[in-house]
Amino acid sequence: MIVVLKPEATADVVSELRARIEALGLRSLHLPGTERTVLGALGDERALAELDLSAHPMVESVQAVLTPYRSVTREFHPHDTIVQIGKVTVGGGRFTVAAGPPFAQPLQSLRDTTEQLPAAGAQVLRCGIIEPRKSPYTKISDPEVLGAQVHQAGKSSGLPVIIEVQTAEDVAQLAHWADAFEVRSIGNHRLLCALAAARKPVFLARGSAERLEDLLMAAEYLIAQGNPHIILCERGVRTFETVLPLALDIGALVWLKNRTHLPVFVDPSHSTGSRILTPAVALAALSAGADGISIYVHHTPEHAGTEGAAALDMAAFSQMIRSLRAVAKTLGREMSP
Amino acid sequence: MIVVLKPEATADVVSELRARIEALGLRSLHLPGTERTVLGALGDERALAELDLSAHPMVESVQAVLTPYRSVTREFHPHDTIVQIGKVTVGGGRFTVAAGPPFAQPLQSLRDTTEQLPAAGAQVLRCGIIEPRKSPYTKISDPEVLGAQVHQAGKSSGLPVIIEVQTAEDVAQLAHWADAFEVRSIGNHRLLCALAAARKPVFLARGSAERLEDLLMAAEYLIAQGNPHIILCERGVRTFETVLPLALDIGALVWLKNRTHLPVFVDPSHSTGSRILTPAVALAALSAGADGISIYVHHTPEHAGTEGAAALDMAAFSQMIRSLRAVAKTLGREMSP
Amino acid sequence: MIVVLKPEATADVVSELRARIEALGLRSLHLPGTERTVLGALGDERALAELDLSAHPMVESVQAVLTPYRSVTREFHPHDTIVQIGKVTVGGGRFTVAAGPPFAQPLQSLRDTTEQLPAAGAQVLRCGIIEPRKSPYTKISDPEVLGAQVHQAGKSSGLPVIIEVQTAEDVAQLAHWADAFEVRSIGNHRLLCALAAARKPVFLARGSAERLEDLLMAAEYLIAQGNPHIILCERGVRTFETVLPLALDIGALVWLKNRTHLPVFVDPSHSTGSRILTPAVALAALSAGADGISIYVHHTPEHAGTEGAAALDMAAFSQMIRSLRAVAKTLGREMSP
Amino acid sequence: MIVVLKPEATADVVSELRARIEALGLRSLHLPGTERTVLGALGDERALAELDLSAHPMVESVQAVLTPYRSVTREFHPHDTIVQIGKVTVGGGRFTVAAGPPFAQPLQSLRDTTEQLPAAGAQVLRCGIIEPRKSPYTKISDPEVLGAQVHQAGKSSGLPVIIEVQTAEDVAQLAHWADAFEVRSIGNHRLLCALAAARKPVFLARGSAERLEDLLMAAEYLIAQGNPHIILCERGVRTFETVLPLALDIGALVWLKNRTHLPVFVDPSHSTGSRILTPAVALAALSAGADGISIYVHHTPEHAGTEGAAALDMAAFSQMIRSLRAVAKTLGREMSP
Repeated sequence: MIVVLKPEATADVVSELRARIEALGLRSLHLPGTERTVLGALGDERALAELDLSAHPMVESVQAVLTPYRSVTREFHPHDTIVQIGKVTVGGGRFTVAAGPPFAQPLQSLRDTTEQLPAAGAQVLRCGIIEPRKSPYTKISDPEVLGAQVHQAGKSSGLPVIIEVQTAEDVAQLAHWADAFEVRSIGNHRLLCALAAARKPVFLARGSAERLEDLLMAAEYLIAQGNPHIILCERGVRTFETVLPLALDIGALVWLKNRTHLPVFVDPSHSTGSRILTPAVALAALSAGADGISIYVHHTPEHAGTEGAAALDMAAFSQMIRSLRAVAKTLGREMSP
Repeated sequence: MIVVLKPEATADVVSELRARIEALGLRSLHLPGTERTVLGALGDERALAELDLSAHPMVESVQAVLTPYRSVTREFHPHDTIVQIGKVTVGGGRFTVAAGPPFAQPLQSLRDTTEQLPAAGAQVLRCGIIEPRKSPYTKISDPEVLGAQVHQAGKSSGLPVIIEVQTAEDVAQLAHWADAFEVRSIGNHRLLCALAAARKPVFLARGSAERLEDLLMAAEYLIAQGNPHIILCERGVRTFETVLPLALDIGALVWLKNRTHLPVFVDPSHSTGSRILTPAVALAALSAGADGISIYVHHTPEHAGTEGAAALDMAAFSQMIRSLRAVAKTLGREMSP
Repeated sequence: MIVVLKPEATADVVSELRARIEALGLRSLHLPGTERTVLGALGDERALAELDLSAHPMVESVQAVLTPYRSVTREFHPHDTIVQIGKVTVGGGRFTVAAGPPFAQPLQSLRDTTEQLPAAGAQVLRCGIIEPRKSPYTKISDPEVLGAQVHQAGKSSGLPVIIEVQTAEDVAQLAHWADAFEVRSIGNHRLLCALAAARKPVFLARGSAERLEDLLMAAEYLIAQGNPHIILCERGVRTFETVLPLALDIGALVWLKNRTHLPVFVDPSHSTGSRILTPAVALAALSAGADGISIYVHHTPEHAGTEGAAALDMAAFSQMIRSLRAVAKTLGREMSP
Repeated sequence: MIVVLKPEATADVVSELRARIEALGLRSLHLPGTERTVLGALGDERALAELDLSAHPMVESVQAVLTPYRSVTREFHPHDTIVQIGKVTVGGGRFTVAAGPPFAQPLQSLRDTTEQLPAAGAQVLRCGIIEPRKSPYTKISDPEVLGAQVHQAGKSSGLPVIIEVQTAEDVAQLAHWADAFEVRSIGNHRLLCALAAARKPVFLARGSAERLEDLLMAAEYLIAQGNPHIILCERGVRTFETVLPLALDIGALVWLKNRTHLPVFVDPSHSTGSRILTPAVALAALSAGADGISIYVHHTPEHAGTEGAAALDMAAFSQMIRSLRAVAKTLGREMSP
């Protein structure tokens, strides 16, 4: 860690800070410069997070040399992590398709759509159960009831299911119904605790305003607490652009694949908000090295509700799967038949 | 609502969509143009949210004429809403100072700081109890225990307290300790339900990637569910800028004050991350029409933890209060003595 | 165009605005609602831009039904536009590789790199001549001299060249050396005028904070002024993310390909800033439908200057080309051998 | 400068890089760590910019300890810089109001508005002459003609004028008409060269996607080239928010005032796009420490063109000035009577 002091920092401040660094078992370095004095800390600087040196009035800035996460990196663990969602194996070169309606209602649509998914080429059922709030005056369904229905639909069609959770309490209530949990924001610490304890696979989606390193920190936390069964997902970030809901940063996917051994998915539906744009984005995700996609499919998209404009119909989904298979073969990637 | 159809939309599509609009009790309008056909819906178009017309394959875009929120607007209710936090009256021209340590620990610091707040010029105690996650390896304290300590510190000093909640369960656990609840993200629908039911004042802070109209929608929801005791707060938004943690959009404050009758606060500490920048931002907030500020103060900021760099010491806080009082007087604003 | 009036707008205001709309030869519509009066304008509403109705004190908002651009759209002209850069044909299903050093200096590097490009698989030479400003104390080279050198390097290797321009004066000075002009920002109107007049192909790159519709507006302007030889390029946008310089929005590429008949390129080098991430992003661009890439290549990247970290060496470039060819073949896309 | 090497960097790489650092006259430091080797460079590390160490394949990251700018900082020059625009003195505690129509046309409006400005409280005339492009089909006026008209209007009313320039050529053409030049983007290096050479005051506005440190770098460049007559201006930045055109970051203003001795203005009109929001933002700017504002005023705002919705009428402008004077007096700030 590199600690840059303010110009007015005295020798006493230098001694005080070096003592605090060394009290943590690190070696301190004193680098007096012409305009600034710099202190270094050698050793595992993660211990220094406790000191909060940036709050010191004589400290100008603190720069970490090492990342605060470690277990998630390829440096620590070079080989691809494999995650099992029910009977489906994710990662390690395979390309997996998780598909389903944007939202679990109406029940008949969920059933009718799910029934057709295996033949069309999906390996996993994903389906929202936490309703997006369109207006203060819409009614909200009980996630537990919807979770059970998603589980049932998946079971009838032989597909394992990913179910979204928002709080620690959801994890307890939905554990029976989920083969994997999906989280769409990493800011809730107690939710991460509950997910770590549940030991089920976690589909950890990057929130639309979350930094990549914060996503890796959340994954690090899960691993540190004993749950290494993690799939990351890039869903797009908020920018100034207005014609598309979110920007799907394909460079972020490649950066993640390079930095971490965890599988990384892409969600082409939520990020583009348009069924016309979805297939090409899915193909790009595969080509850039994604381990899979999470995609909206609906047997009658015009009745799919709030995010219906982003849902593919079955014919478009099947055609997209054929393109994915052709490209996967060319790239030497394995894809379920 | 204005529905723009795709060029290829047929007369049958027009008839179908007009029938769907009229089935909701609205009047439909047909505006055939040279390049596009446009449909209009007259009446309370909020009912149309249910239809999700944007998912229709022949619909190019849907533009609302009315905002989806109504009860929060000055058009609906022109006069300033007054919110009571314990004995403290917020809104209606008064300027209120909510202050306290960034985080409730260590306990002695919380007590020592709070003790000095009333004399220094604070009317409300605010204090974080949900620990920011610095690293996957830090331990997290129990919010309920911390909530009780904040309550106790406030009581000893005669200050009502605002306590942060993240989930619906927090609301139940902390109701006994809080004079008002603070929420820092509006995406959790069940949390909003619980806050509406609790009937306590809600300090509704805009998340760093949340749109202003979504903030108003969340407030609308609380009002619709029976809890009109709401204070909004601008805490800064994420941008591409790197020298400051967040951008404090002073125009957003003015826009909110203009659009809604609810009191609006500003948080100069969290947004700037620096005790050097805080007082000037607080003064700007008052001058732009804010109803109050939420600010970090600590009797020894260098021991204030993760956000310590943003905490004012008591002397700087007192000096800022003196400046605020002088400007408040000039502007004809009331401020507690 | 839909004009929403403020609640306090009187019948006189309605009459005045309708008269102004009709004076432009459009048909006006009066849609009185329960909370707002709405006016519509039927006909080619682009004429209305002149009226600046949003400045009227009784107008709440103005919403366009039609886009302000027309000639660039597939609706107006469904088939792919073909652009000729020297002897190289761009668009219409072909995938074109424009490559070269980040910057034209040192001259020997430019020559050595360019010499190897044709065999390695590039069809066009692209090379920066407007030096990025690293510090106020670096010297800046004369773009005209550099332009001549790039032209000479391209000629020796049989490659047409794309040369960057920043001002209208650059266009005049560099016209002799450029087979196509590159622009990296669309805000300079007189530059667009000069480019329209020059009649050479324009490689119109989206600036890192420019909206997609503003990019199309700039292209529309060039077409309206008589220069339809335009290639668009997505180079990434600025976001809150800090581990990557820009976010390469792959959905934006697909949106552009869907909306316009102009060829669209992707720049994987500038957006990721890293030679490790570049090849996968290039593959994604091809798979998502890009007409080509603009990429940094250097025979000794560690001496390539400011953006050297983003430059591929010749071996990595050749390997990337092989992957692109394999995927292009699978997708039925033509790529120069 | 701190250079972090990749784990695979050998002792030879360490020797090579240390030699390159020392060849520039700096002292190099070798800090071998448990996971990474770090090199330090002591001395004026600005020289190292030339080395472009980040392009080296064995370098993981390069972190500067010193800022690349120096002359603009308060550390280098603690006292407020005073800038003279014609007879008007800017900076050093004074609060200056630069006002005028958004755009110089029609001529009669420019004259009628400017005539009323001195009595209403403006000290400087600012007026756009580079037309915003509303549509590809609008005609553009000649900036030189408009510049002369602005000069004439200012002269008749006794106000010095700030005139916008976009290119180096504008500087030459408009030098005769401008008391100060305004620049709204810092990316054009040759424009900065021309502004440095012209020796007239430069009103350097932050572009809507430009970082604060890049703004300071541009100012540093002007100073280094011999023109220290610089006023900075915060005009708002692009974010995901859609109800306001730009976010006016009041913390950025305070950060700038703290970091640099140059005067800093705020533009409340361009950032909010609304005459209703402007006065409160102007008051906030003064209270936060701005040296002045640049604001749109028009005698009949509904005829003020594209940005007319942001222009104050004369009555609202006068009322705002009265509020500014009252607050300035309270803050001990000098403001022209």
